[in-house]
Amino acid sequence: MSDLPRHVRIREVGPREGFQFEKAVIATADKIAFVDALSATGLKGIEFVSFVSPKWVPQMADADAWCDGITKKPGVEYYGLWLNLQGLERALAHGDKITIRPSFSLPASNTFSIKNTNKPVSAKLDEMPEYVARYRALGYERLDIGVSVAFGCNYEGAIPDDRVISLLTEQERRVGDLGLEVGEIVLMDTMGWANPAQIKRVVGRVRDLWPDHAVALHLHDTRGLAIANFVAGLEMGVDSYDAAVAGLGGCPFAAHKGAAGNICTEDTVFLCQEMGIETGVDLDRLIAVAETAERLVGHPLPGKVKVGGNLATYRAARGSPAIA
Amino acid sequence: MSDLPRHVRIREVGPREGFQFEKAVIATADKIAFVDALSATGLKGIEFVSFVSPKWVPQMADADAWCDGITKKPGVEYYGLWLNLQGLERALAHGDKITIRPSFSLPASNTFSIKNTNKPVSAKLDEMPEYVARYRALGYERLDIGVSVAFGCNYEGAIPDDRVISLLTEQERRVGDLGLEVGEIVLMDTMGWANPAQIKRVVGRVRDLWPDHAVALHLHDTRGLAIANFVAGLEMGVDSYDAAVAGLGGCPFAAHKGAAGNICTEDTVFLCQEMGIETGVDLDRLIAVAETAERLVGHPLPGKVKVGGNLATYRAARGSPAIA
Repeated sequence: MSDLPRHVRIREVGPREGFQFEKAVIATADKIAFVDALSATGLKGIEFVSFVSPKWVPQMADADAWCDGITKKPGVEYYGLWLNLQGLERALAHGDKITIRPSFSLPASNTFSIKNTNKPVSAKLDEMPEYVARYRALGYERLDIGVSVAFGCNYEGAIPDDRVISLLTEQERRVGDLGLEVGEIVLMDTMGWANPAQIKRVVGRVRDLWPDHAVALHLHDTRGLAIANFVAGLEMGVDSYDAAVAGLGGCPFAAHKGAAGNICTEDTVFLCQEMGIETGVDLDRLIAVAETAERLVGHPLPGKVKVGGNLATYRAARGSPAIA
Repeated sequence: MSDLPRHVRIREVGPREGFQFEKAVIATADKIAFVDALSATGLKGIEFVSFVSPKWVPQMADADAWCDGITKKPGVEYYGLWLNLQGLERALAHGDKITIRPSFSLPASNTFSIKNTNKPVSAKLDEMPEYVARYRALGYERLDIGVSVAFGCNYEGAIPDDRVISLLTEQERRVGDLGLEVGEIVLMDTMGWANPAQIKRVVGRVRDLWPDHAVALHLHDTRGLAIANFVAGLEMGVDSYDAAVAGLGGCPFAAHKGAAGNICTEDTVFLCQEMGIETGVDLDRLIAVAETAERLVGHPLPGKVKVGGNLATYRAARGSPAIA
């Protein structure tokens, strides 16, 4: 395990990806306090808001008030999501709070693309120039690229590794033609199809082809393999991950049967702690936020260490060494 | 990942380890049907009963009727647990159904040993001769040995690797002195303290010292790392595991806050399927049994693939290759 990174960067996506699935109405004041609590854990990146139409995502109707309400903590970056240029302009209007992260991605499944956005993958690729033009006008020089549904699709089945590589290659070519540089390369297991061998294989190919670019993984725990896929990523040297506190993003124990959460942030931080990998996160504070998440959504969430308990506490009480 | 075993043997322990934690009264007829359903999944070993005092484990008061009721399927071995020689005699009385698996283990935590059985580890070791004498009288030649609480203890904190090795060494020496051979070596993460690096380190030492003995892992998902620890075991060549259907063995979402289940059998089988490792288990049938388990205990159980769905079904529907 000598290739493990010494430090891992975790981008919290729970409030953005998680709350939109929930039936409970969460008060704006509670959402604001939740993000402020997350920013006190040591997490350095928090994606909490979607600048999308409240017609489609009513839980984000208070996006502007939510942005206005948070207290920006120095050293923490706050992110939002947008699905069109109008959304980007809304994010820009919150430039005092929201860090613009220029990024672009394509789904590896055309069927998913059409069902999700009514557009085939080719049409989404054709949208790249207008995004790049806007980012260039704003002074940005790099664009993160990525592939969603990269490891399998409930509609199309298995996704060949070659398709992921060709979608990245095509994005890289166009980004260069349009005058930006490629930043991070993001691989998303949107539907929870990945297994550890596949993670190692696909990440290995990406790193061979783009050795100078950081790779990030976005994992879902749909079928229980997320933490094993996370370790597979670590063993391939990947040091950037999305995760959701308490495993927000869908709950198999509530109304959303079949939906499934992101990999759980505090379980991920706990694994890093046990393996001697730094995250900069205060695990006990993060567990307290996870417990708050359960109160806000009104049902149990799948994270485990919030129930099982942080081993650092047991070790400290017994005078055991820091890492067992 | 070239060292992965091609075939993994999973011993189902859900009914034995799981039902004893549950508050719901499960009818004997339902217990019998449950074991019979498990034996139709392709699992080759099922531990379902404890021959213990109903005063301590009231859920096992019907142990004898449960044994009598099951229909023994050819090729499947059925196991029970006993904590003293009286229990062993009860198991022997069900010799038509129950396979006696001579085994012995010591906890790596003296505090746990005293709290759990009122005896220090040294006193437990002193019990070995009477067990061995009985097993020899019955004609057995091999004794599985093991260490429980091998990776950490809620009472004592970290468990040094050396303590695990010395407890195995001492058991091996005594087994030899008493005229039996050592069989399988079982390492138990009773309290869910293990992490993948630790699994690799401890298993590596055990395999170096006892290269001719099979190693088995008994994992708990107390803090969400069980499936990652399972992969770590696979990567060390371990091909024998205990697991509990649906993740029985304690439920963090119900009354048993803090208790935690074994690694979930169907999630484990699913991971093997996705990695191209044979288990001989029909995953869809096993998922159906996991759903039955939830009905019997009356609350959700933590297994994931029973909610997320078997990818083989999606792939077959789309004509995708068997392994993505």
